[in-house]
Amino acid sequence: MMHIDIISAVPDLLYSPLSHSIVQKAKDKNLVSIDIHDLRDYSVDKHKKIDDYAYGGEAGMVLTPQPLFDCVKYLQQKRTYDAIIFPTPDAPVFTQKDANTLSLSNNILFICGHYKGIDQRVRDSLVTHEWSIGDYVLSGGELPALVISDAIIRLIPGVLGDATSALDDSHQDGLLSAPVYTRPAVYDGLEVPEVLRSGDHKKVSEWRSRQSEEKTRRIRSDLYKNVFKEH
Amino acid sequence: MMHIDIISAVPDLLYSPLSHSIVQKAKDKNLVSIDIHDLRDYSVDKHKKIDDYAYGGEAGMVLTPQPLFDCVKYLQQKRTYDAIIFPTPDAPVFTQKDANTLSLSNNILFICGHYKGIDQRVRDSLVTHEWSIGDYVLSGGELPALVISDAIIRLIPGVLGDATSALDDSHQDGLLSAPVYTRPAVYDGLEVPEVLRSGDHKKVSEWRSRQSEEKTRRIRSDLYKNVFKEH
Repeated sequence: MMHIDIISAVPDLLYSPLSHSIVQKAKDKNLVSIDIHDLRDYSVDKHKKIDDYAYGGEAGMVLTPQPLFDCVKYLQQKRTYDAIIFPTPDAPVFTQKDANTLSLSNNILFICGHYKGIDQRVRDSLVTHEWSIGDYVLSGGELPALVISDAIIRLIPGVLGDATSALDDSHQDGLLSAPVYTRPAVYDGLEVPEVLRSGDHKKVSEWRSRQSEEKTRRIRSDLYKNVFKEH
Repeated sequence: MMHIDIISAVPDLLYSPLSHSIVQKAKDKNLVSIDIHDLRDYSVDKHKKIDDYAYGGEAGMVLTPQPLFDCVKYLQQKRTYDAIIFPTPDAPVFTQKDANTLSLSNNILFICGHYKGIDQRVRDSLVTHEWSIGDYVLSGGELPALVISDAIIRLIPGVLGDATSALDDSHQDGLLSAPVYTRPAVYDGLEVPEVLRSGDHKKVSEWRSRQSEEKTRRIRSDLYKNVFKEH
Protein backbone atom coordinates (compact mmCIF):
# COMPACT_ATOMS: atom_id res chain seq x y z
CA MET A 1 0.00 0.00 0.00
CA MET A 2 1.26 3.48 -0.87
CA HIS A 3 1.53 5.94 2.00
CA ILE A 4 1.50 9.70 1.55
CA ASP A 5 2.36 12.27 4.24
CA ILE A 6 1.60 15.94 3.70
CA ILE A 7 3.07 18.70 5.89
CA SER A 8 1.07 21.92 5.70
CA ALA A 9 0.63 25.25 7.42
CA VAL A 10 -3.09 25.17 6.44
CA PRO A 11 -3.95 21.48 6.94
CA ASP A 12 -7.71 22.06 6.96
CA LEU A 13 -7.51 23.15 3.34
CA LEU A 14 -6.57 19.61 2.33
CA TYR A 15 -9.40 17.53 3.74
CA SER A 16 -12.25 17.59 1.23
CA PRO A 17 -10.25 16.69 -1.90
CA LEU A 18 -8.66 13.80 0.00
CA SER A 19 -11.99 12.35 1.10
CA HIS A 20 -13.91 12.19 -2.19
CA SER A 21 -13.78 10.68 -5.62
CA ILE A 22 -10.80 8.57 -6.73
CA VAL A 23 -8.68 9.30 -3.65
CA GLN A 24 -11.40 8.15 -1.27
CA LYS A 25 -11.99 5.04 -3.41
CA ALA A 26 -8.28 4.22 -3.23
CA LYS A 27 -8.35 4.68 0.55
CA ASP A 28 -11.45 2.47 0.84
CA LYS A 29 -9.68 -0.26 -1.12
CA ASN A 30 -6.59 0.04 1.13
CA LEU A 31 -4.47 0.98 -1.87
CA VAL A 32 -3.32 4.24 -0.35
CA SER A 33 -3.22 5.90 3.08
CA ILE A 34 -2.71 9.60 3.62
CA ASP A 35 -1.75 11.53 6.77
CA ILE A 36 -1.86 15.29 7.06
CA HIS A 37 0.55 16.99 9.47
CA ASP A 38 -0.03 20.47 10.87
CA LEU A 39 3.30 22.30 10.65
CA ARG A 40 2.36 24.43 13.66
CA ASP A 41 2.37 21.32 15.89
CA TYR A 42 6.13 21.08 15.32
CA SER A 43 7.01 24.67 16.23
CA VAL A 44 8.96 25.03 19.48
CA ASP A 45 8.08 28.73 19.58
CA LYS A 46 5.74 29.57 22.45
CA HIS A 47 3.33 31.27 20.03
CA LYS A 48 3.62 28.35 17.56
CA LYS A 49 5.16 30.73 15.05
CA ILE A 50 6.20 29.06 11.79
CA ASP A 51 7.18 31.99 9.56
CA ASP A 52 9.33 35.09 9.62
CA TYR A 53 10.45 37.95 7.38
CA ALA A 54 12.72 37.21 4.43
CA TYR A 55 16.37 38.21 4.70
CA GLY A 56 17.31 40.95 2.27
CA GLY A 57 14.11 42.94 2.62
CA GLU A 58 12.00 40.99 0.13
CA ALA A 59 8.22 41.23 0.52
CA GLY A 60 6.32 38.27 1.93
CA MET A 61 6.81 35.79 4.79
CA VAL A 62 8.98 32.67 4.65
CA LEU A 63 8.47 29.38 6.54
CA THR A 64 11.28 29.00 9.11
CA PRO A 65 13.66 26.02 9.25
CA GLN A 66 12.95 24.64 12.75
CA PRO A 67 9.36 23.33 12.43
CA LEU A 68 10.07 21.82 8.99
CA PHE A 69 13.34 20.16 10.03
CA ASP A 70 11.76 18.76 13.19
CA CYS A 71 8.64 17.49 11.43
CA VAL A 72 10.55 15.80 8.59
CA LYS A 73 13.05 14.22 11.00
CA TYR A 74 10.19 12.90 13.14
CA LEU A 75 8.48 11.35 10.11
CA GLN A 76 11.76 9.89 8.82
CA GLN A 77 12.06 7.91 12.04
CA LYS A 78 8.83 6.16 11.09
CA ARG A 79 9.31 5.68 7.34
CA THR A 80 11.88 5.64 4.58
CA TYR A 81 10.71 7.97 1.84
CA ASP A 82 11.09 7.29 -1.86
CA ALA A 83 10.53 10.99 -2.43
CA ILE A 84 10.39 14.11 -0.26
CA ILE A 85 8.66 16.52 -2.61
CA PHE A 86 8.54 20.31 -2.44
CA PRO A 87 6.06 21.65 -5.01
CA THR A 88 7.25 25.09 -6.09
CA PRO A 89 7.00 27.27 -9.20
CA ASP A 90 10.82 27.53 -9.45
CA ALA A 91 11.40 23.90 -10.41
CA PRO A 92 11.19 21.52 -13.38
CA VAL A 93 7.64 21.01 -14.64
CA PHE A 94 5.79 17.89 -13.45
CA THR A 95 4.70 15.61 -16.29
CA GLN A 96 2.78 12.38 -16.81
CA LYS A 97 6.12 10.56 -16.98
CA ASP A 98 6.93 11.74 -13.44
CA ALA A 99 3.46 10.61 -12.34
CA ASN A 100 4.07 7.16 -13.82
CA THR A 101 7.41 6.83 -11.99
CA LEU A 102 6.10 8.18 -8.67
CA SER A 103 3.09 5.84 -8.76
CA LEU A 104 5.51 2.97 -8.04
CA SER A 105 6.61 4.53 -4.72
CA ASN A 106 5.87 3.14 -1.27
CA ASN A 107 6.28 6.30 0.81
CA ILE A 108 5.98 9.88 -0.35
CA LEU A 109 6.26 13.05 1.72
CA PHE A 110 5.04 16.45 0.54
CA ILE A 111 6.21 19.70 2.10
CA CYS A 112 3.75 22.47 1.25
CA GLY A 113 5.18 25.94 1.01
CA HIS A 114 3.11 28.93 1.97
CA TYR A 115 3.37 32.69 1.68
CA LYS A 116 6.63 33.51 -0.11
CA GLY A 117 8.08 30.00 0.23
CA ILE A 118 10.29 28.02 2.58
CA ASP A 119 13.80 28.67 3.82
CA GLN A 120 16.27 27.51 1.17
CA ARG A 121 18.16 25.44 3.75
CA VAL A 122 15.16 23.10 4.00
CA ARG A 123 15.19 22.66 0.23
CA ASP A 124 18.93 22.04 0.17
CA SER A 125 19.01 19.59 3.09
CA LEU A 126 15.75 17.65 3.14
CA VAL A 127 13.93 17.84 -0.18
CA THR A 128 14.70 15.14 -2.78
CA HIS A 129 12.32 16.23 -5.58
CA GLU A 130 11.09 19.66 -6.60
CA TRP A 131 8.38 20.10 -9.20
CA SER A 132 6.25 22.89 -10.55
CA ILE A 133 2.79 21.73 -11.61
CA GLY A 134 2.80 24.53 -14.20
CA ASP A 135 4.14 27.98 -15.03
CA TYR A 136 1.91 29.99 -12.74
CA VAL A 137 2.03 31.00 -9.09
CA LEU A 138 -0.33 29.75 -6.38
CA SER A 139 -0.78 30.85 -2.79
CA GLY A 140 0.65 27.62 -1.36
CA GLY A 141 1.88 24.12 -2.08
CA GLU A 142 -1.33 22.45 -0.93
CA LEU A 143 -3.13 22.41 -4.30
CA PRO A 144 0.02 21.19 -6.10
CA ALA A 145 0.42 18.39 -3.50
CA LEU A 146 -3.23 17.42 -4.13
CA VAL A 147 -2.71 17.54 -7.91
CA ILE A 148 0.41 15.36 -7.82
CA SER A 149 -1.26 12.95 -5.39
CA ASP A 150 -4.32 12.62 -7.62
CA ALA A 151 -2.17 12.08 -10.72
CA ILE A 152 -0.27 9.22 -9.10
CA ILE A 153 -3.06 7.61 -7.07
CA ARG A 154 -5.24 7.05 -10.15
CA LEU A 155 -2.36 5.10 -11.72
CA ILE A 156 -2.09 2.58 -8.87
CA PRO A 157 -3.43 -0.73 -10.24
CA GLY A 158 -6.97 -1.36 -8.97
CA VAL A 159 -7.85 2.28 -8.27
CA LEU A 160 -9.64 3.01 -11.54
CA GLY A 161 -12.53 0.67 -12.27
CA ASP A 162 -11.36 -0.21 -15.73
CA ALA A 163 -7.74 -1.28 -16.16
CA THR A 164 -7.51 0.18 -19.65
CA SER A 165 -9.02 3.50 -18.70
CA ALA A 166 -5.78 5.27 -17.75
CA LEU A 167 -3.78 4.02 -20.73
CA ASP A 168 -5.65 5.91 -23.44
CA ASP A 169 -5.59 9.20 -21.51
CA SER A 170 -4.08 12.28 -23.06
CA HIS A 171 -0.28 12.40 -22.61
CA GLN A 172 0.25 8.66 -22.08
CA ASP A 173 1.32 8.38 -25.74
CA GLY A 174 2.48 11.98 -25.99
CA LEU A 175 -0.65 13.06 -27.87
CA LEU A 176 -3.91 14.66 -26.78
CA SER A 177 -6.90 12.32 -26.65
CA ALA A 178 -9.64 12.33 -29.28
CA PRO A 179 -13.07 13.89 -28.59
CA VAL A 180 -15.53 11.71 -26.66
CA TYR A 181 -19.29 11.51 -27.09
CA THR A 182 -22.06 9.77 -25.22
CA ARG A 183 -25.82 9.34 -25.63
CA PRO A 184 -28.08 10.70 -26.96
CA ALA A 185 -26.96 10.44 -30.60
CA VAL A 186 -28.70 13.75 -31.29
CA TYR A 187 -29.02 16.44 -28.60
CA ASP A 188 -30.80 19.66 -29.48
CA GLY A 189 -29.87 19.17 -33.13
CA LEU A 190 -26.20 18.39 -32.37
CA GLU A 191 -25.10 15.00 -33.68
CA VAL A 192 -22.51 12.48 -32.58
CA PRO A 193 -20.15 11.78 -35.54
CA GLU A 194 -21.53 8.87 -37.53
CA VAL A 195 -18.31 6.86 -37.49
CA LEU A 196 -18.51 6.47 -33.71
CA ARG A 197 -21.99 4.95 -34.05
CA SER A 198 -21.00 2.67 -36.94
CA GLY A 199 -19.81 -0.26 -34.85
CA ASP A 200 -16.82 -0.54 -37.20
CA HIS A 201 -13.94 -0.82 -34.74
CA LYS A 202 -11.23 -0.32 -37.33
CA LYS A 203 -12.82 2.88 -38.62
CA VAL A 204 -13.42 4.15 -35.08
CA SER A 205 -9.80 3.51 -34.21
CA GLU A 206 -8.57 5.30 -37.35
CA TRP A 207 -10.90 8.26 -36.67
CA ARG A 208 -9.59 8.53 -33.11
CA SER A 209 -5.93 8.46 -34.17
CA ARG A 210 -6.55 11.10 -36.82
CA GLN A 211 -8.50 13.35 -34.40
CA SER A 212 -5.82 12.90 -31.77
CA GLU A 213 -3.03 13.84 -34.18
CA GLU A 214 -4.91 16.78 -35.66
CA LYS A 215 -5.90 18.18 -32.27
CA THR A 216 -2.36 17.86 -30.97
CA ARG A 217 -0.87 19.56 -34.05
CA ARG A 218 -3.43 22.37 -33.87
CA ILE A 219 -3.31 23.30 -30.19
CA ARG A 220 -0.06 21.76 -28.87
CA SER A 221 2.46 21.87 -31.70
CA ASP A 222 5.24 21.41 -29.11
CA LEU A 223 3.95 17.94 -28.19
CA TYR A 224 3.26 17.07 -31.82
CA LYS A 225 6.85 17.81 -32.79
CA ASN A 226 8.13 15.60 -29.98
CA VAL A 227 6.13 12.62 -31.15
CA PHE A 228 6.61 13.03 -34.88
CA LYS A 229 10.11 14.51 -34.89
CA GLU A 230 11.52 11.60 -36.89
CA HIS A 231 8.88 11.71 -39.61
CA MET B 1 -16.34 41.95 -7.06
CA MET B 2 -15.34 38.88 -9.04
CA HIS B 3 -17.85 36.02 -9.08
CA ILE B 4 -16.89 32.42 -9.79
CA ASP B 5 -19.35 29.58 -10.47
CA ILE B 6 -18.15 25.97 -10.48
CA ILE B 7 -20.23 23.11 -11.89
CA SER B 8 -19.14 19.73 -10.55
CA ALA B 9 -20.25 16.12 -10.31
CA VAL B 10 -18.43 15.89 -6.95
CA PRO B 11 -19.18 19.28 -5.39
CA ASP B 12 -18.21 18.21 -1.86
CA LEU B 13 -14.63 17.78 -3.02
CA LEU B 14 -14.37 21.53 -3.56
CA TYR B 15 -15.32 22.94 -0.18
CA SER B 16 -12.20 22.93 2.01
CA PRO B 17 -9.81 24.60 -0.45
CA LEU B 18 -12.41 27.31 -1.08
CA SER B 19 -12.85 28.10 2.62
CA HIS B 20 -9.25 28.56 3.76
CA SER B 21 -6.18 30.65 3.17
CA ILE B 22 -6.11 33.28 0.39
CA VAL B 23 -9.49 32.33 -1.09
CA GLN B 24 -11.27 32.68 2.25
CA LYS B 25 -9.48 35.99 2.87
CA ALA B 26 -10.66 37.27 -0.51
CA LYS B 27 -14.23 36.17 0.29
CA ASP B 28 -14.05 37.86 3.71
CA LYS B 29 -12.94 41.09 2.05
CA ASN B 30 -15.82 40.85 -0.47
CA LEU B 31 -13.32 40.73 -3.32
CA VAL B 32 -14.63 37.43 -4.67
CA SER B 33 -17.73 35.25 -4.28
CA ILE B 34 -17.89 31.60 -5.28
CA ASP B 35 -20.88 29.31 -5.84
CA ILE B 36 -20.64 25.57 -6.32
CA HIS B 37 -23.31 23.84 -8.39
CA ASP B 38 -24.04 20.12 -8.12
CA LEU B 39 -24.39 18.83 -11.68
CA ARG B 40 -26.76 16.10 -10.48
CA ASP B 41 -29.33 18.77 -9.47
CA TYR B 42 -29.73 19.59 -13.17
CA SER B 43 -30.32 16.06 -14.43
CA VAL B 44 -33.86 15.41 -15.68
CA ASP B 45 -33.27 11.66 -15.41
CA LYS B 46 -35.35 10.04 -12.68
CA HIS B 47 -32.21 8.46 -11.18
CA LYS B 48 -30.30 11.78 -11.49
CA LYS B 49 -27.94 10.08 -13.93
CA ILE B 50 -25.27 12.41 -15.37
CA ASP B 51 -22.97 10.04 -17.28
CA ASP B 52 -23.13 7.28 -19.87
CA TYR B 53 -20.86 5.02 -21.90
CA ALA B 54 -18.69 6.56 -24.60
CA TYR B 55 -19.68 6.01 -28.22
CA GLY B 56 -17.20 3.88 -30.11
CA GLY B 57 -16.49 1.44 -27.29
CA GLU B 58 -13.86 3.49 -25.47
CA ALA B 59 -13.31 2.67 -21.80
CA GLY B 60 -14.60 5.09 -19.17
CA MET B 61 -17.78 7.08 -18.60
CA VAL B 62 -18.60 10.46 -20.19
CA LEU B 63 -20.73 13.27 -18.74
CA THR B 64 -23.93 13.58 -20.82
CA PRO B 65 -25.04 16.81 -22.57
CA GLN B 66 -28.42 17.45 -20.89
CA PRO B 67 -27.43 18.31 -17.29
CA LEU B 68 -24.49 20.46 -18.46
CA PHE B 69 -26.49 22.35 -21.11
CA ASP B 70 -29.34 22.96 -18.66
CA CYS B 71 -27.07 24.08 -15.84
CA VAL B 72 -25.03 26.47 -18.00
CA LYS B 73 -28.15 27.94 -19.60
CA TYR B 74 -29.69 28.47 -16.17
CA LEU B 75 -26.58 30.29 -14.93
CA GLN B 76 -26.33 32.36 -18.12
CA GLN B 77 -29.75 33.80 -17.37
CA LYS B 78 -28.30 35.22 -14.16
CA ARG B 79 -24.89 36.39 -15.35
CA THR B 80 -22.87 37.24 -18.42
CA TYR B 81 -19.63 35.28 -18.29
CA ASP B 82 -16.26 36.62 -19.36
CA ALA B 83 -15.09 33.04 -19.57
CA ILE B 84 -16.72 29.59 -19.48
CA ILE B 85 -13.72 27.41 -18.74
CA PHE B 86 -13.35 23.68 -19.23
CA PRO B 87 -10.10 22.48 -17.63
CA THR B 88 -8.88 19.45 -19.60
CA PRO B 89 -5.54 17.82 -20.41
CA ASP B 90 -6.18 18.11 -24.17
CA ALA B 91 -5.89 21.89 -24.33
CA PRO B 92 -3.31 24.70 -24.37
CA VAL B 93 -1.31 24.93 -21.15
CA PHE B 94 -2.43 27.54 -18.58
CA THR B 95 0.27 30.11 -17.76
CA GLN B 96 0.79 33.09 -15.49
CA LYS B 97 -0.09 35.32 -18.43
CA ASP B 98 -3.52 33.68 -18.62
CA ALA B 99 -3.90 34.14 -14.87
CA ASN B 100 -3.08 37.84 -15.19
CA THR B 101 -5.69 38.29 -17.94
CA LEU B 102 -8.39 36.24 -16.19
CA SER B 103 -7.88 38.14 -12.93
CA LEU B 104 -9.55 41.15 -14.61
CA SER B 105 -12.80 39.22 -15.20
CA ASN B 106 -16.12 39.89 -13.50
CA ASN B 107 -17.80 36.51 -13.97
CA ILE B 108 -16.13 33.16 -14.54
CA LEU B 109 -17.76 29.76 -14.91
CA PHE B 110 -15.88 26.47 -14.56
CA ILE B 111 -17.23 23.18 -15.90
CA CYS B 112 -15.44 20.31 -14.19
CA GLY B 113 -15.08 17.13 -16.21
CA HIS B 114 -15.10 13.78 -14.50
CA TYR B 115 -14.39 10.19 -15.46
CA LYS B 116 -13.34 10.12 -19.12
CA GLY B 117 -14.48 13.69 -19.85
CA ILE B 118 -17.53 15.51 -21.11
CA ASP B 119 -19.50 15.13 -24.32
CA GLN B 120 -17.70 17.05 -27.09
CA ARG B 121 -20.92 18.89 -28.00
CA VAL B 122 -20.75 20.73 -24.66
CA ARG B 123 -17.20 21.80 -25.44
CA ASP B 124 -18.12 22.91 -28.96
CA SER B 125 -21.28 24.82 -27.97
CA LEU B 126 -20.80 26.26 -24.49
CA VAL B 127 -17.15 26.41 -23.50
CA THR B 128 -15.19 29.60 -24.35
CA HIS B 129 -11.79 28.69 -22.86
CA GLU B 130 -10.05 25.33 -22.49
CA TRP B 131 -6.84 25.00 -20.52
CA SER B 132 -4.65 22.23 -19.23
CA ILE B 133 -2.96 23.07 -15.94
CA GLY B 134 -0.09 20.77 -16.99
CA ASP B 135 0.86 17.73 -19.04
CA TYR B 136 -0.54 15.08 -16.75
CA VAL B 137 -3.95 13.49 -16.24
CA LEU B 138 -6.14 13.94 -13.18
CA SER B 139 -9.34 12.20 -12.14
CA GLY B 140 -11.50 15.28 -12.66
CA GLY B 141 -11.57 18.99 -13.40
CA GLU B 142 -12.12 19.99 -9.77
CA LEU B 143 -8.45 20.38 -8.77
CA PRO B 144 -7.65 22.30 -11.99
CA ALA B 145 -10.61 24.64 -11.34
CA LEU B 146 -9.25 25.22 -7.82
CA VAL B 147 -5.74 25.80 -9.15
CA ILE B 148 -6.88 28.34 -11.75
CA SER B 149 -9.13 30.05 -9.20
CA ASP B 150 -6.29 30.34 -6.70
CA ALA B 151 -3.90 31.68 -9.36
CA ILE B 152 -6.30 34.44 -10.34
CA ILE B 153 -7.80 35.30 -6.94
CA ARG B 154 -4.37 36.07 -5.43
CA LEU B 155 -3.84 38.63 -8.21
CA ILE B 156 -6.97 40.65 -7.41
CA PRO B 157 -5.77 43.93 -5.88
CA GLY B 158 -6.19 43.86 -2.09
CA VAL B 159 -6.18 40.06 -1.71
CA LEU B 160 -2.51 39.67 -0.82
CA GLY B 161 -1.41 41.68 2.20
CA ASP B 162 1.53 43.27 0.47
CA ALA B 163 0.93 44.89 -2.90
CA THR B 164 4.42 44.11 -4.12
CA SER B 165 4.31 40.49 -3.06
CA ALA B 166 2.86 39.04 -6.27
CA LEU B 167 5.08 41.02 -8.60
CA ASP B 168 8.39 39.37 -7.71
CA ASP B 169 6.93 35.85 -7.93
CA SER B 170 8.47 33.31 -10.25
CA HIS B 171 7.13 33.63 -13.81
CA GLN B 172 6.02 37.26 -13.56
CA ASP B 173 9.24 38.31 -15.31
CA GLY B 174 9.67 35.00 -17.12
CA LEU B 175 12.39 33.85 -14.70
CA LEU B 176 12.34 31.66 -11.60
CA SER B 177 12.63 33.51 -8.31
CA ALA B 178 15.82 33.59 -6.26
CA PRO B 179 16.21 31.49 -3.08
CA VAL B 180 14.64 32.95 0.08
CA TYR B 181 15.94 32.71 3.63
CA THR B 182 14.57 33.72 6.99
CA ARG B 183 15.81 33.71 10.59
CA PRO B 184 17.83 32.29 12.26
CA ALA B 185 21.01 33.31 10.42
CA VAL B 186 22.52 29.95 11.38
CA TYR B 187 20.38 26.84 11.81
CA ASP B 188 22.09 23.60 12.78
CA GLY B 189 25.31 24.82 11.18
CA LEU B 190 23.57 25.94 7.97
CA GLU B 191 24.13 29.63 7.19
CA VAL B 192 22.11 32.25 5.37
CA PRO B 193 24.30 33.75 2.56
CA GLU B 194 26.15 36.75 3.96
CA VAL B 195 25.09 39.14 1.21
CA LEU B 196 21.44 38.86 2.30
CA ARG B 197 22.41 39.93 5.82
CA SER B 198 24.65 42.77 4.63
CA GLY B 199 21.95 45.43 4.42
CA ASP B 200 23.47 46.52 1.10
CA HIS B 201 20.39 46.76 -1.09
CA LYS B 202 22.29 47.07 -4.34
CA LYS B 203 24.34 43.95 -3.63
CA VAL B 204 21.24 42.04 -2.50
CA SER B 205 19.45 43.00 -5.67
CA GLU B 206 22.41 41.94 -7.84
CA TRP B 207 22.69 38.63 -5.97
CA ARG B 208 19.00 37.95 -6.50
CA SER B 209 19.13 38.70 -10.22
CA ARG B 210 22.17 36.46 -10.66
CA GLN B 211 20.61 33.60 -8.63
CA SER B 212 17.39 33.97 -10.55
CA GLU B 213 19.14 33.83 -13.92
CA GLU B 214 21.41 30.93 -12.94
CA LYS B 215 18.56 28.87 -11.50
CA THR B 216 16.41 29.44 -14.57
CA ARG B 217 19.25 28.50 -16.95
CA ARG B 218 20.06 25.37 -14.95
CA ILE B 219 16.60 23.86 -14.43
CA ARG B 220 14.35 25.60 -16.98
CA SER B 221 16.48 26.32 -20.03
CA ASP B 222 13.26 26.70 -22.07
CA LEU B 223 12.23 29.75 -20.03
CA TYR B 224 15.77 31.11 -20.00
CA LYS B 225 15.95 31.05 -23.80
CA ASN B 226 12.64 32.92 -24.04
CA VAL B 227 13.85 35.77 -21.85
CA PHE B 228 17.38 36.05 -23.22
CA LYS B 229 16.76 35.14 -26.83
CA GLU B 230 17.87 38.53 -28.09
CA HIS B 231 21.14 38.54 -26.18
